Amino acid sequence: GWARAVRGLLLDVSGVLYDSGADGGVPIAGSVEAVRRIKASGLKLRFCTNETQATRENFVKKLRGMGFDICVSEVTAPAPAACHILKERGLRPHLLVHDDLVPEFAEVDKTNPNCVVLGDAAENFTYANLNEAFRVLIGMEKPVLISLGRGRYYKETDGLKLDVGAYMKALEYACDVQAEVVGKPSERFFESALAEMGVPAEQAIMIGDDIVNDVGGAQRCGMRALQVRTGKYRPSDENHPDVKPDAYVNNLAEAVDIILQQL
Amino acid sequence: GWARAVRGLLLDVSGVLYDSGADGGVPIAGSVEAVRRIKASGLKLRFCTNETQATRENFVKKLRGMGFDICVSEVTAPAPAACHILKERGLRPHLLVHDDLVPEFAEVDKTNPNCVVLGDAAENFTYANLNEAFRVLIGMEKPVLISLGRGRYYKETDGLKLDVGAYMKALEYACDVQAEVVGKPSERFFESALAEMGVPAEQAIMIGDDIVNDVGGAQRCGMRALQVRTGKYRPSDENHPDVKPDAYVNNLAEAVDIILQQL
Repeated sequence: GWARAVRGLLLDVSGVLYDSGADGGVPIAGSVEAVRRIKASGLKLRFCTNETQATRENFVKKLRGMGFDICVSEVTAPAPAACHILKERGLRPHLLVHDDLVPEFAEVDKTNPNCVVLGDAAENFTYANLNEAFRVLIGMEKPVLISLGRGRYYKETDGLKLDVGAYMKALEYACDVQAEVVGKPSERFFESALAEMGVPAEQAIMIGDDIVNDVGGAQRCGMRALQVRTGKYRPSDENHPDVKPDAYVNNLAEAVDIILQQL
Repeated sequence: GWARAVRGLLLDVSGVLYDSGADGGVPIAGSVEAVRRIKASGLKLRFCTNETQATRENFVKKLRGMGFDICVSEVTAPAPAACHILKERGLRPHLLVHDDLVPEFAEVDKTNPNCVVLGDAAENFTYANLNEAFRVLIGMEKPVLISLGRGRYYKETDGLKLDVGAYMKALEYACDVQAEVVGKPSERFFESALAEMGVPAEQAIMIGDDIVNDVGGAQRCGMRALQVRTGKYRPSDENHPDVKPDAYVNNLAEAVDIILQQL
């Protein structure tokens, strides 16, 4: 049923292709081969990530180092999507992002800021930097806050870390504004990925480990969506009150097996 | 009308008695004398503050230095109220508060924490400390977050600063919990102040500069409440959609003039 009439696949990256770890990450068993098989099949493919701790160049470099057949032009990520919005609306950002993401905004005018762009800034989330971003926002007649994702937290080898969504909420509350979220699960973000692939939502399947941001977001755009039982998947996801994937698969390799059988 | 049948006064401190500044603060004209006149009149008096950057001892010391007749036993503040709740419920806090507030929790068992107490930690709001407080919370079966206030921001001589409420929202979102707020505008906090004064709500008047936390909070407890046109007062407060003070006064001295005339 769920694998019928598919022309394109959207893959989440962290937790689907690889698990992040102290050394940068290790591929999930079968995923390197699964990406090759998708490409060989003639299906369209797009990598759809909320990664904001590195430029796409460095992100792709890391994945190629693990053996994945991937290039920059195949990646949909929040920072380039934000750049597009900034240009479209004549916005000049004050950036509160990870140092390694800054080059993505190289072409953007950042003088005399009229908005704040917030990413997972990690060590850059200092008291001083948060107050500074806040002052830029509260100084505007109508504050514009663009957030690269709305994640609550994530796991690193040295423990759980607050994600960008928590800091977004802090600034939203202090300034009494609502952030515009770029990245999954925003509809616009999935639609860009579909457009870049040239496949309509009805013929695309999203494969991800995040029940809300990957599965729920893609389904709201009219796509089918699978949850893999790797990465941040937890058994309790299968009882999620709002989101029900079109199917569960043990991992990407199994999803690709089933999809390719139906072609 | 509004000054009839009064037996006790609750005074906010910052913005009513003094304005904070680089040198610690300066008394608002007429306020030192106004406090003396209240005490001479036989009215009951209670200082009701959300201050969490100093122990009551140091807070009172600063005010006495400005000439105010005030002592520790007359002050209702969030930290001692929190200590009371902690003891009552057998809670052992992980503290994310200002260094100068820590002594207020000297008597509290802090081993093996089963809740987080959040204050305006200022420079202690580091990335590492926020992640640590988050991990303590997310590690509990049912996270308990106690927040010493819910302010959005405040002004210091070197600019606006995010207040405890912003960080409360970040942790609330990340852990999917609702904080218990100690301090104004919590009903329980005002009720403690009334009990300590021994005056029922109907015979008490709150005087503050904060339309929501002072005026709105006190009125919800059945008190009358005045807004002074000092401190953080802004003309736009007079069009507040939800809260309407029983009266506006230019400053504490004017409020005391009117109240004492009616006695």
